[in-house]
Amino acid sequence: MKILIIGAAGMIGTRLAKSIIKNKTNKTKHDITLFDVIAPKLDENDGSCRIKIGDISDSSVAAELINEMPDIIYHLAAIVSGDAESDFKKGWNTNASGTWNLLEEIRKKNISLTGSYKPKFIFTSSIAVFSGPYPNTINDDFSPNPETSYGAQKLVGEILISDYTRKGFLQGIALRFPTIVVRPGIPNKAASSFYSSIIREPLNGIEAILPVHESLRHWFASPQSAISFLLHAAKLDFTKLGNRRSLNLPGISCSITEQISALEEIAGAKISNLIKRHFDPEIDKIVGNWPQNFMATRAIELGFVADKNFKEIIQKYIDEEINLIS
Amino acid sequence: MKILIIGAAGMIGTRLAKSIIKNKTNKTKHDITLFDVIAPKLDENDGSCRIKIGDISDSSVAAELINEMPDIIYHLAAIVSGDAESDFKKGWNTNASGTWNLLEEIRKKNISLTGSYKPKFIFTSSIAVFSGPYPNTINDDFSPNPETSYGAQKLVGEILISDYTRKGFLQGIALRFPTIVVRPGIPNKAASSFYSSIIREPLNGIEAILPVHESLRHWFASPQSAISFLLHAAKLDFTKLGNRRSLNLPGISCSITEQISALEEIAGAKISNLIKRHFDPEIDKIVGNWPQNFMATRAIELGFVADKNFKEIIQKYIDEEINLIS
Repeated sequence: MKILIIGAAGMIGTRLAKSIIKNKTNKTKHDITLFDVIAPKLDENDGSCRIKIGDISDSSVAAELINEMPDIIYHLAAIVSGDAESDFKKGWNTNASGTWNLLEEIRKKNISLTGSYKPKFIFTSSIAVFSGPYPNTINDDFSPNPETSYGAQKLVGEILISDYTRKGFLQGIALRFPTIVVRPGIPNKAASSFYSSIIREPLNGIEAILPVHESLRHWFASPQSAISFLLHAAKLDFTKLGNRRSLNLPGISCSITEQISALEEIAGAKISNLIKRHFDPEIDKIVGNWPQNFMATRAIELGFVADKNFKEIIQKYIDEEINLIS
Repeated sequence: MKILIIGAAGMIGTRLAKSIIKNKTNKTKHDITLFDVIAPKLDENDGSCRIKIGDISDSSVAAELINEMPDIIYHLAAIVSGDAESDFKKGWNTNASGTWNLLEEIRKKNISLTGSYKPKFIFTSSIAVFSGPYPNTINDDFSPNPETSYGAQKLVGEILISDYTRKGFLQGIALRFPTIVVRPGIPNKAASSFYSSIIREPLNGIEAILPVHESLRHWFASPQSAISFLLHAAKLDFTKLGNRRSLNLPGISCSITEQISALEEIAGAKISNLIKRHFDPEIDKIVGNWPQNFMATRAIELGFVADKNFKEIIQKYIDEEINLIS
């Protein structure tokens, strides 16, 4: 099985790669290519794991990747929400044109091989395709209406994938990821970055800034769940998707007040008190319009499994990231 | 007022141009540019009405059009549904990339003039953005899920327009047109073409082919209503659209059985008997998944007005097209 991970240097991409490499040594033989604008950092020393560097907004780069004819393509690469909002051109170039370039190269390959090349294309979309006003619980029929460039670009990717799939050029699925917390490492340019910081920094004994109202409720999954979503998608019978190739994934609905309580329960008030309120109207404007709660019926029926609760999400971070260090 | 009509050689574009030219001589002074891949046919002899020929999928052509800084841009140009379905590349190039090229050129002009250029951009989208299963009546919250390339391309156009509008580069609106009947002239490559043929051909004493099941219900507006939608959009206060820049337009819900009855009532059984059943599974597959009935609450509240009933739609065709000849 030839696997291509686009966006392999990102937090999810690197974890996914490690997970597939680990699985490979145990059971199956995979040929893995890791692609990103910078080299992914891997602990494992794996010779057959090819590393490629480039930018998918360049169509010749996309052509080179598809020319290898991967069976499964994970497309995780994206300019994150805050960055796409401040650099309009960059966001549209990578998130929309870049995705389109990949699909076009697959289509050309499919046609040149009279339909025999038809890879699985697993795309990480986002709940940022939605905007309010929201119902209490968002069901699978709720209409996307992006109010960030990032959300708009992800939705364009979804529509392209759906049409290329319908026409038989590939087998596509778009997974609308919850916000992933707790991300290890340092903050990034995503408007959602603080959602990880307010848990991660205190657990590491550092102050964290909370830039939005504490009553804000949002939809979360752990990095571990994110990987399980991606691995599950690769095994899925795509015909079960019918004519709806975008899926709202399951997650945990949680207010910031509840998140802080969960942190306090696990680590004590001394830790949770390291969260400092410093309101940022710019971030509040973006995040305040994000969805709060979903009923992800279709995804659950298709076997996608969420975390149990927010405490479990924190505990997974502690188990993987803190305990390794201490 | 500088007005640019893109797609001016089409049936709607030509009518719109004539209507604006007529209005101009009576009241206001407009500077009108008519653009299409072929020259539009106009009866009126109007010196100030500039004609330009080209293809918006070429970005230099889009740049030239926007360089004139039109205040109102009607973007009606499209590869029609049947053609976009059989020629995938052509449809995406014109309907999606072409629209994107226009928006990009407007953005560049807006930035170079530090925001002072911000035209109204009126885009004809389509109810082809939807697919079934449908509720009995589709409300304004029903989620688009295109199942034709044409519908997917129109939806991508909508998302682009919404994001470019949100960022302040232009003032955009996407009007989801009902199927327009009765189109004068000859059939085109739209899958919906027979909907005009089954009324037009009999009224002109010619046999017409009905390629789908007679029970099929669909959503219609007359060419006259289409023009009134476009003229109304130009006068609309766009801030009233809030963060939802795509509108389902009002129309008439009618089954083919009801259409044939209306034709018989107006013109007699001898005329309506000129409709011959010849089932075409290809057309039936496309059209059978089209929406049947809408509650276009937002558009009606914003002042868009539909035809009264299907008989009125037929009568408007007779008044304008048949009576002129006879």
